Amino acid sequence: MAQKVKADLRGSAAGAVELAGPSKPSDRASIRRSNLGLVLRLLRDSGPRSRTRIAADTGLPKPTITNLVVELAALGLVREGREERSGAVGRPGLTVEIDGRGFCGIGVEVSVDYLSAVALTLRGDELYRHRVALDVGASGQESVLDEIAALVRAALVAADAAGARCVGLTVATPGVVDFAAGTTAYAPNIGWRHVPVLAGLRERLGPDAPPFALENDAKLGAIAEYLVVQDQDIHDMIYVTGEVGVGGGIISGGQLLRGAAGYSGEIGHMPLDPGGHPCVCGRRGCWETMVGMAALLRAVADPEDPVHDPSLDLETRLADVAARAARGDTRTLAALEKLADDLALGVALLADVLNPRAVVLGGYFAHLGAYLIDRVRAGVSRRVMAPDAGGCEVLLSTLGFTAPSRGGAYLALDRVYQDPSAIAGGR
Amino acid sequence: MAQKVKADLRGSAAGAVELAGPSKPSDRASIRRSNLGLVLRLLRDSGPRSRTRIAADTGLPKPTITNLVVELAALGLVREGREERSGAVGRPGLTVEIDGRGFCGIGVEVSVDYLSAVALTLRGDELYRHRVALDVGASGQESVLDEIAALVRAALVAADAAGARCVGLTVATPGVVDFAAGTTAYAPNIGWRHVPVLAGLRERLGPDAPPFALENDAKLGAIAEYLVVQDQDIHDMIYVTGEVGVGGGIISGGQLLRGAAGYSGEIGHMPLDPGGHPCVCGRRGCWETMVGMAALLRAVADPEDPVHDPSLDLETRLADVAARAARGDTRTLAALEKLADDLALGVALLADVLNPRAVVLGGYFAHLGAYLIDRVRAGVSRRVMAPDAGGCEVLLSTLGFTAPSRGGAYLALDRVYQDPSAIAGGR
Repeated sequence: MAQKVKADLRGSAAGAVELAGPSKPSDRASIRRSNLGLVLRLLRDSGPRSRTRIAADTGLPKPTITNLVVELAALGLVREGREERSGAVGRPGLTVEIDGRGFCGIGVEVSVDYLSAVALTLRGDELYRHRVALDVGASGQESVLDEIAALVRAALVAADAAGARCVGLTVATPGVVDFAAGTTAYAPNIGWRHVPVLAGLRERLGPDAPPFALENDAKLGAIAEYLVVQDQDIHDMIYVTGEVGVGGGIISGGQLLRGAAGYSGEIGHMPLDPGGHPCVCGRRGCWETMVGMAALLRAVADPEDPVHDPSLDLETRLADVAARAARGDTRTLAALEKLADDLALGVALLADVLNPRAVVLGGYFAHLGAYLIDRVRAGVSRRVMAPDAGGCEVLLSTLGFTAPSRGGAYLALDRVYQDPSAIAGGR
Repeated sequence: MAQKVKADLRGSAAGAVELAGPSKPSDRASIRRSNLGLVLRLLRDSGPRSRTRIAADTGLPKPTITNLVVELAALGLVREGREERSGAVGRPGLTVEIDGRGFCGIGVEVSVDYLSAVALTLRGDELYRHRVALDVGASGQESVLDEIAALVRAALVAADAAGARCVGLTVATPGVVDFAAGTTAYAPNIGWRHVPVLAGLRERLGPDAPPFALENDAKLGAIAEYLVVQDQDIHDMIYVTGEVGVGGGIISGGQLLRGAAGYSGEIGHMPLDPGGHPCVCGRRGCWETMVGMAALLRAVADPEDPVHDPSLDLETRLADVAARAARGDTRTLAALEKLADDLALGVALLADVLNPRAVVLGGYFAHLGAYLIDRVRAGVSRRVMAPDAGGCEVLLSTLGFTAPSRGGAYLALDRVYQDPSAIAGGR
């Protein structure tokens, strides 16, 4: 119902924008390219299907579909298979499905206390995953770039061993990212200001490296989480990263909402407690000072406690916190209750402003989710102005700390989905 | 540049949604309807132009355009005129432009202390405008519906006198509006909860009334403001209503962002001052308690001062406040400085979350804008995380208190722009 209302209103104030860039392919070659992408995206989003079904779903003639499928198969992007049937009557038909084992995308995340990488095939299968603990703020920027380059090389070796060519690479950092310039403009949690990440990597990886891009971690996390929840008919969603910093990625009507200059989602610095703790940004009481991982750890344990040690693996430290909660440690439970209340405060604000169908809590929130989720949901229901929280559900990420790097890999692969013919002649 | 980056990323996570509703007209009649709308919207958004130019802009063949223009002219929606030339060489060509004097849309706004109505022709010319002071919260809901119906009848009489047929009517109320049900679900500033506005009006106006809809005031205001700023290449914008309540309308990529269930834009209740004033919603320190009109008036003058009297005309009361500021009244100036700082706090939060190209301050903010704008801009620049406030400008509305009703009229007229043939057989 909600979707319908939205669709009805879509055109209301949109004329100029619709008309500004008329998307009429100008020649046969570009029509063909655009149709190749249409078929490939249909197979990704709606699963394997027969040529007849593809023709019906796309509105293109059957002979055109046959030609397009032949071309996609020659590129190594699709293959034929038998339809999975569950209880249907009749002979199973010959279906087309995405192959794409020969291609992968790589995502690398730079976080406050780790670097991580993942390589995914076009089908989303994981070829490689690795995380290294690193105190990014304390390391020099040049040495962090060295580490990223080493991680990328390892991922490329793994992809190569699996027979997959890397079609692209996306690096995720926290903070304000200038996508067009490939620069992290301002990331106070790691002390970066105007760091030319892409230029530094280009220098290290040389001219043969796959094409790469830089994007904000929460935006990439949102892309990865959206691919998980879209099957539940969720197309308006906010992903909240829970790391040392707190960021947001907004999906609106199935699209990443980047904002006018690509700087949307800076939710960690919402001023929710004017008299509160000092923030790395120089102000007081930002939401991040209330719900960031540092705030929780501070509340849970004294400074000398090993849960504060950034050289230890993050998930081990969080498992330690969860174990304390499980055995009923009063200080830990009180800290988690306070965290849930403060989370609800900011999530309700975002739900009031954007009315998403879901807010997905990622990163460390997901790891401690069992101790948070009920109280967060109750708090959000109580606070949101619209009835029934405006239909907004609070969900826990199933991707945890891998969401930003997975999103980076998906974004790299998206190039193929937009223009499958681009991979024909190598890079 | 920003637009380009956005367009590049458009497809990234959108496949499923793009494919969910393939917009392929299924027959000749629907293709024709869709093309009629395409031409009419082009003329609205890009101005008068020749048939040749329309063919080039839409990608449709010239003979098709000629037929479409004949049909639009027969419907009374377009007419032929001479092109305006400024310094161009050669004979001025015959151009097509929107006529539409014969059709109008009506918007009615229900505010805390007034009702207002406007009637606009398809070209946006104002046929009628009227505002009546009314203490809506203190009046019974039935009597408010009576007043709205009377206002609509007066607007219809004025339209009729101008020879314009009303194609639709939109009523704006504050608060959480259930668009699909035609109900104002929760509007604490006027004390409404589950008020079936459309059913009540249908009863009063009878079966011959034009089709009508109900929408949130700030969303309609945003539509009206977007039509003003889109010429400046602004397609990501937040409109902030400044009345007794504070609401928001979000335009993202040229589209009204309604959220999953249509409840987006509840910005008045962002909890920015935990220890602050009590709010009508039952909590403390909502943004509305800091920047709503009641907060300013309370700071400016004691309770017995006539600026508080809701039976006096609103603009007269605000002119009185402005006059006090102009003659240097210390209390008034201090109140306006505080208001500007508190406005900057919330506007910066919204700019961090959504990264709009502009935030437009409407309603009473616009009336007192001269005393607010510099300080708000400075505060926003200082607070937003992205460099240069992420490119976000703070603007004053030029529509003031008429934005919601104008937006209501535009939304009603949009029906014609989406499907011009719908008006052929009466309603």
